Amino acid sequence: MSAFSAATAVTRRGDGDVYDTDLDLGWSIGGKPNGGYLLAILARAATEAADRPHPLAVSGHFLRPPDGGPAEVHVEIVKAGRTVSTVRSTLWQHGKPCLDSLVTVGDLTGKPVDYAAEPAPTLPTPEECRSRADTPFKVELLDHIDVLLDPATSPFPTPTGHPMIQGWMRFRDGADADAHALALAVDAMPPTVFHLERFGWAPTVELTFLLRGVPAPGWLSFRAEATFVADGWFDESATVWDSTGRLVAQSRQLALLGRSS
Amino acid sequence: MSAFSAATAVTRRGDGDVYDTDLDLGWSIGGKPNGGYLLAILARAATEAADRPHPLAVSGHFLRPPDGGPAEVHVEIVKAGRTVSTVRSTLWQHGKPCLDSLVTVGDLTGKPVDYAAEPAPTLPTPEECRSRADTPFKVELLDHIDVLLDPATSPFPTPTGHPMIQGWMRFRDGADADAHALALAVDAMPPTVFHLERFGWAPTVELTFLLRGVPAPGWLSFRAEATFVADGWFDESATVWDSTGRLVAQSRQLALLGRSS
Repeated sequence: MSAFSAATAVTRRGDGDVYDTDLDLGWSIGGKPNGGYLLAILARAATEAADRPHPLAVSGHFLRPPDGGPAEVHVEIVKAGRTVSTVRSTLWQHGKPCLDSLVTVGDLTGKPVDYAAEPAPTLPTPEECRSRADTPFKVELLDHIDVLLDPATSPFPTPTGHPMIQGWMRFRDGADADAHALALAVDAMPPTVFHLERFGWAPTVELTFLLRGVPAPGWLSFRAEATFVADGWFDESATVWDSTGRLVAQSRQLALLGRSS
Repeated sequence: MSAFSAATAVTRRGDGDVYDTDLDLGWSIGGKPNGGYLLAILARAATEAADRPHPLAVSGHFLRPPDGGPAEVHVEIVKAGRTVSTVRSTLWQHGKPCLDSLVTVGDLTGKPVDYAAEPAPTLPTPEECRSRADTPFKVELLDHIDVLLDPATSPFPTPTGHPMIQGWMRFRDGADADAHALALAVDAMPPTVFHLERFGWAPTVELTFLLRGVPAPGWLSFRAEATFVADGWFDESATVWDSTGRLVAQSRQLALLGRSS
């Protein structure tokens, strides 16, 4: 079993609506479990509860950061349909909800691509990229995921003023990313607002993840971009392509701007 | 009271968690209430329940299209926080949930814009644009909203092969758009996949709306774009700017591709 599968495993309690999980702080940033990691857990519980393989749309609203250790996922099947089913999937810990989500699940059949506006980014080779792990910030998650930044878009050592980051990623244990791992992939890059010299902790309030394909084995490539920073808030969109250049995931999040350091 | 305010009004039943509403088929497309119109109702109930003015992030998962007439919004305050509160807001009719949502609400204070990647589109004057109402499709909603398409991006009479549409919009009764009206605005343009000659009904499965500013009075401008069509699914993103050129709303939806006509 891959490290990711183990760290996101959920176990149904009897035949009820509660799944037990164990939050692994190895998948954290600065001691707080990564938001995409938590969403992957909620999506896994939702796909298991509805017995459909693919989390097509996962909308997570972040309430309070959980600690590492035991937690529960409460699932409610809102509608079981022919094409898709919708599940409310909520992470609870210490008697409080930490992350609430609605998850629409279904089956991606792998039919061909009809239209793609945005090809996978043209990147230097992985060897020519800069490891995210080589930064001043402690990111536990990077012990599990190798995130390599195109040097032209890396905020380290010097922010560019343009909040866009692209690069490669894959699991360090050699496992290939599956559909659930993409929920983590869209949230594993540095905040693009680092390029605007906003280095404070930027809590995500909402993140919606769309699964657009089941990834082929190999490296994932990604691009993340912030488009509007105002009023203390910013958005960040991420797109992930698989090793064949097929788009497989999209996300957008709304986050509170950290204080300038 | 504006037509929009009347059509999206919600009335709390006693001091409980149910709001009554009346779905107005004047805000439909082909006899089905517009998805953005329904989201605006859910957002209104959420802001009233949490006593915060602005629906910052609204994630809606569409379950079944409701009929016109009486319906209920069930609200659950998931977390009441200092900066934001999160509410689950669900539309029910005939004893079944029709649209489920999570809504994070708060206060936009109107602080200045720090960064904007995308300026408002450069458009012909409203007089030089083409009315969406002047199409072969019956769109009841257009009796209430004037949606004017930049002729260079209009799928009528001839699709361009590039799924992007931009233009102007405003209410016909002279009311200015408020924060809640933007949830409707992001879903009031023709499906951009019309440009790919996919004219079938394209049911939205998920739509997330982000409120980024309270709009100034006057015309709204918009751009909508599909980026990836595959496997029977497409995404469509919309951005709305107010009359001062400030970005005020962003959305992305996942929808099932209609059959080619």
